[in-house]
Amino acid sequence: MTNTPAESPVTVIGLGPMGQALAGAFLKAGHPTTVWNRSADKARAVVEQGAVLAPTAAEAIAASPLVLVCVIDYDVVHTILDPEVDALKGRTLVNLTADSPEKARETAAWAAGHGFDYLDGAIMTPTVTIGGPAAVVLYSGPESVYRTHQPALASLGGTAAHLGTDHGRAAAHDVALLDLFWTAMSGVVHAFALARAENIAAKDLGPFAQGIIGLLPDLVTDYVEQIDEGNYPGDISSITSAVAGMEHIIHAAEDRGIDAGVLRAAQATARRAVAEGHGDDGFSRLTEVLGRPSA
Amino acid sequence: MTNTPAESPVTVIGLGPMGQALAGAFLKAGHPTTVWNRSADKARAVVEQGAVLAPTAAEAIAASPLVLVCVIDYDVVHTILDPEVDALKGRTLVNLTADSPEKARETAAWAAGHGFDYLDGAIMTPTVTIGGPAAVVLYSGPESVYRTHQPALASLGGTAAHLGTDHGRAAAHDVALLDLFWTAMSGVVHAFALARAENIAAKDLGPFAQGIIGLLPDLVTDYVEQIDEGNYPGDISSITSAVAGMEHIIHAAEDRGIDAGVLRAAQATARRAVAEGHGDDGFSRLTEVLGRPSA
Repeated sequence: MTNTPAESPVTVIGLGPMGQALAGAFLKAGHPTTVWNRSADKARAVVEQGAVLAPTAAEAIAASPLVLVCVIDYDVVHTILDPEVDALKGRTLVNLTADSPEKARETAAWAAGHGFDYLDGAIMTPTVTIGGPAAVVLYSGPESVYRTHQPALASLGGTAAHLGTDHGRAAAHDVALLDLFWTAMSGVVHAFALARAENIAAKDLGPFAQGIIGLLPDLVTDYVEQIDEGNYPGDISSITSAVAGMEHIIHAAEDRGIDAGVLRAAQATARRAVAEGHGDDGFSRLTEVLGRPSA
Repeated sequence: MTNTPAESPVTVIGLGPMGQALAGAFLKAGHPTTVWNRSADKARAVVEQGAVLAPTAAEAIAASPLVLVCVIDYDVVHTILDPEVDALKGRTLVNLTADSPEKARETAAWAAGHGFDYLDGAIMTPTVTIGGPAAVVLYSGPESVYRTHQPALASLGGTAAHLGTDHGRAAAHDVALLDLFWTAMSGVVHAFALARAENIAAKDLGPFAQGIIGLLPDLVTDYVEQIDEGNYPGDISSITSAVAGMEHIIHAAEDRGIDAGVLRAAQATARRAVAEGHGDDGFSRLTEVLGRPSA
């Protein structure tokens, strides 16, 4: 049943905070774990937890049938692994580095060309979640390869989802979800800046900010239905009223010397929708407007 | 104890979707409710629920010691109420129209000059929540005025909070929270646009989008502490790494013909922080960077 049982060896290449968390989770789950990083000093903490530090990337790869890599971007993946394709032959590489769907597909072609299995993955939750119930890790690539290593990958905790055979699919989810994340976090810091300019302490705004965030999941549920059906009702809140609402906020920010470029750009998209005749539609219409060239 | 018991009359001026929700909540709580709107046809639904439609704003005001107004902006508040200051004398006006802190303070001065009590309020939740447990309505102005009308205002449901005597304080919260809301929602529609360009259905991305949103409340808790202490640790995630992460997303969007203006503006703020020497700090540092002129 389990093709990679608890005692199956795992190699982790890249020991930034996330790589260390991955290695730590494998160790905790009982996998003999070999690690390698360009600067060896980053291995100290995981070696203390029981990891074996290999002197070279080739030796790290040779230690395990399953090799994970998690570095800053795919250029670094290739810098490290292009010289090691012979060592990788017959093994499975799982790349948890965040990058674009295109790069994921190119890297899959590179792996196929060199005769080793490849899964592309995306880690959707912070380092502290890894190994625990809150972790979310997405994978794409051949289903049989995923099934083979699923038991070992389950050591990373939480939700592991295989999204399909297109190697770019995990990265495509990653990019879209990080888009949402960074845009929302930009809204968070901007809201606190605006509050601060009105002498509202962060601790006073915080609970209300969390309340506003608490409205979003249900709105996402509504938007999902609207977007997939191509039907964008604006009876409760229209794009035109959103443009007007944003205008108040932009003025309030700029009157206080706070750059409002983020909301100005958001408003420009909404204005474009109005100009294209969608002012009475709901805000979810912007998904469709963003997805095609300007009229 | 209750100065405005259940049977105390209430007047609602402005019968857009929110005004209708307010009137409906007062009626449900047993308050004789008088309404007025510039176009009388909007009154139909609440009249069916038992509201009395007054023929003029003056007569609507004369019907109740407590008058709520909820219209599109403060210019409309003044267009409607400037001719009615004699009718308002001795009564309490609660203005739930969304606008700026400055306009709230000006309107408070106008009310004081004409001899009537004034509370400025902000409704933080959608119309459908009004009268139910999820409603959040913020008030600012004299505490004694708030206490007098608290029992009637409680009919609007959920959380009612008096934020202080500065009449601009509710509007300042409102502006900051709507800033967060619209920025985050812009991230939502953009994420769905990016997913759609990769043939990911909204229903497939939706649960993961909700997962990402689920990370935000704990991050807000962390940011609150960091912002109020002026201490922005970047050990888990630095501004420099955020800039790099945003770069991937911007390229992914633009490669697919999707405008990335929102995230470009967010990245510009992050780059400014890096240029000012804060690259190793955490993202919460941007609150402080946004709040002062560019170096």
